[in-house]
Amino acid sequence: MASSWLQIPKESPFSLANIPFGIISTKTIATPVPAVAIGDYALNLATFASSDGFALLPAIQSHLNVFYQRTLNAFAALGRPVHRQVREYLQVILKADTPYPHILKDNATLRKQALVAMAEVTSHLPMHIGDYTDFYAGLNHAYNVGVLFRGKENALQPNYRHMPVGYHGRASSVVPSGTAIRRPSGQIVVDPAADPKLPTFSACKRLDVEIELAAFVGVGSNLGEPIPIGEAEDHLFGVVLMNDWSARDIQAWEYIPLGPFNGKNFATTVTPWVILMDALETFRTPGLEPANRESLLPYLREERLNNCFDIHLEFELKNSGGRPTIVSKTNSSNLLFSFPQMLAHHTITGCNVNPGDLLGSGTISGNVPGTEGSLLEQTNGGKRPIRLADGTERLFLEDGDEVVLRGMCGKEGGYVGFGDCVGVILPAIHMG
Amino acid sequence: MASSWLQIPKESPFSLANIPFGIISTKTIATPVPAVAIGDYALNLATFASSDGFALLPAIQSHLNVFYQRTLNAFAALGRPVHRQVREYLQVILKADTPYPHILKDNATLRKQALVAMAEVTSHLPMHIGDYTDFYAGLNHAYNVGVLFRGKENALQPNYRHMPVGYHGRASSVVPSGTAIRRPSGQIVVDPAADPKLPTFSACKRLDVEIELAAFVGVGSNLGEPIPIGEAEDHLFGVVLMNDWSARDIQAWEYIPLGPFNGKNFATTVTPWVILMDALETFRTPGLEPANRESLLPYLREERLNNCFDIHLEFELKNSGGRPTIVSKTNSSNLLFSFPQMLAHHTITGCNVNPGDLLGSGTISGNVPGTEGSLLEQTNGGKRPIRLADGTERLFLEDGDEVVLRGMCGKEGGYVGFGDCVGVILPAIHMG
Repeated sequence: MASSWLQIPKESPFSLANIPFGIISTKTIATPVPAVAIGDYALNLATFASSDGFALLPAIQSHLNVFYQRTLNAFAALGRPVHRQVREYLQVILKADTPYPHILKDNATLRKQALVAMAEVTSHLPMHIGDYTDFYAGLNHAYNVGVLFRGKENALQPNYRHMPVGYHGRASSVVPSGTAIRRPSGQIVVDPAADPKLPTFSACKRLDVEIELAAFVGVGSNLGEPIPIGEAEDHLFGVVLMNDWSARDIQAWEYIPLGPFNGKNFATTVTPWVILMDALETFRTPGLEPANRESLLPYLREERLNNCFDIHLEFELKNSGGRPTIVSKTNSSNLLFSFPQMLAHHTITGCNVNPGDLLGSGTISGNVPGTEGSLLEQTNGGKRPIRLADGTERLFLEDGDEVVLRGMCGKEGGYVGFGDCVGVILPAIHMG
Repeated sequence: MASSWLQIPKESPFSLANIPFGIISTKTIATPVPAVAIGDYALNLATFASSDGFALLPAIQSHLNVFYQRTLNAFAALGRPVHRQVREYLQVILKADTPYPHILKDNATLRKQALVAMAEVTSHLPMHIGDYTDFYAGLNHAYNVGVLFRGKENALQPNYRHMPVGYHGRASSVVPSGTAIRRPSGQIVVDPAADPKLPTFSACKRLDVEIELAAFVGVGSNLGEPIPIGEAEDHLFGVVLMNDWSARDIQAWEYIPLGPFNGKNFATTVTPWVILMDALETFRTPGLEPANRESLLPYLREERLNNCFDIHLEFELKNSGGRPTIVSKTNSSNLLFSFPQMLAHHTITGCNVNPGDLLGSGTISGNVPGTEGSLLEQTNGGKRPIRLADGTERLFLEDGDEVVLRGMCGKEGGYVGFGDCVGVILPAIHMG
């Protein structure tokens, strides 16, 4: 990968190979604007566009309004060929031997106006999310949790390998990394052996993490018109890292027969920088069980075998004292279905999607200890504590705990990463 | 109830006692505007407001911009005291012995500009729906369906009487009455006795109706802040009638363990006129099992025992020949939980709600034959056909069938009704 005339730390997730898009504000930029992340800087695209930064990219001239919006929805709706051109253009402008140094490299005025130190940036939710859908495509997670809830025999339902199982999630409570997470309260059953079971009102005692990838829809579809599997990827805008916070005790009592509701609806955290589909292209890898493809119905069968991404994921927990522990390391190739398959399945009924809709992958776990994407799995259902670096133990999250998820692909100097997906747990509200 | 100087047919759902709000356009009003329904007319509130129609209502003067929007979200967000004032003001302006005839009754110019014949009106979705949640509070329906899916012993889950069970629905495919419904396709299991079960790709063969009420949120809430049960009703804007179309065969194969997804996401139809909470106030009645209140956790316990509405509901089916059959008559008092209880439960975790969020009640069924709110129940799970007026039979909906749901309370001349909730079934798309 080419290097940049900007100083980019070797360990930065935002190398020249990445160029993820987001929405930022600063003390002086009060109204949020689109930007790309590059090393320790954000390039303000509103300023860049208004100062003729895109002068050499004719295709975007009639769409420059998308860079003056408070979300990326309008840019995303332009479609993948435009995203590709804009990203590649910015890579050319930012590379060390750019043939167009007058645009930014040697333009001290615009550099000063448009390049903002990341330390000064507040990142916002990158898109207005109309609908959020969470899938369950992490096969090892589905199996591990299935064993805990229903035993080995019924761990995976008969439908599991035939479709990307999913459910509608709560869009209003999707928040950007850094938002503090209030511990939820609700109905929990203290004695599951009692007959009849009786719920107690309580703060959640089994608050958990779920490591997921999530894809934003770029180009929408009309009601009544399924998106064919071969066209599905071009409807996607890009990918973020997601923490699907889960209240296991609330979920366990409520979820039969209609699925998770209050156990999930209090918060879902996403990284604010959207990695475009093209930036992930070189990190393709087969998903779990490529042979499963053969038994899929045609509407889910992809031409390409490399339908997953080789993204290294980690889950770090800092207790309130601040010492970090890496709880888990895993990889996004542990998915049985791809985002295009999820989108094809979601719309096969004619369900319409809109720019900004969010598709979660489901929790990503490996199949050996230390690779589980949730505490529920790590602690064998809350029965086997994990030990933190400072010697304390955890079954589930405690107040003051800070969770940091990270995801990265590529090599030092050329990383394509999400940045940190962070949330700290606040105590439950005291209810009268 | 007072009469109006406008000719209002006695059987109209839009009597002077109603004054529901909606969004309309016509051939000459290309951009949708807010309106109220009154008899055979819609009163264009943009025109009414801009012609000083609200001159005698000081409270609304600084908010007149809400009547120049394409949705009712801004009006709804003003809160119940404002909704009440505007509705009562319009009732005064429209009543036969109005003390202010110069505003509209004797103002021929404004009457001609602002009163639009309903026959010329296109009704739109009244609100932008951020999130749609569907509950399951119709006890008889939950029991009937539970018996079909899981047998009498497990028909109702242990949680059922303790909370309004619900799940997140699909907001993008909520459509206004009159939108044609494309039969969905997807995975269905033709032989449920086979081991292993194998899905087939097929158009849905068990397409069904669900009669529900649904409430729109008016005033939102912040993330992390539950809405107390005593304040929940004032967060509601009003109520519509809803048809939660359901693909029973797709749903049966997919719904364990995460709930309904493709079986529901292809379409949900709502009536376009929102009946304000105040218009329903005189039709209060106890819900099913008022004594159940005593065993509820305090966050769900309402002061008022009359927490349901006495709304007569009916489900009519016209085959493509056009002869109507009343399939079912029921009443909305067949709900175990109220909308305020649903909202208190939804937010007890800190989940935030926004103006325009939609809460479905769950299917409303009585407990005697002819009062079931779905064909699944009417036909005993697709085993006992119903006979239509023209002598043909139905287990589930056929292409060309038109479904009309109606809901009304009060007496002739003073009806408070929703108008028709209509959808006609189009054949499935042929997939390659």
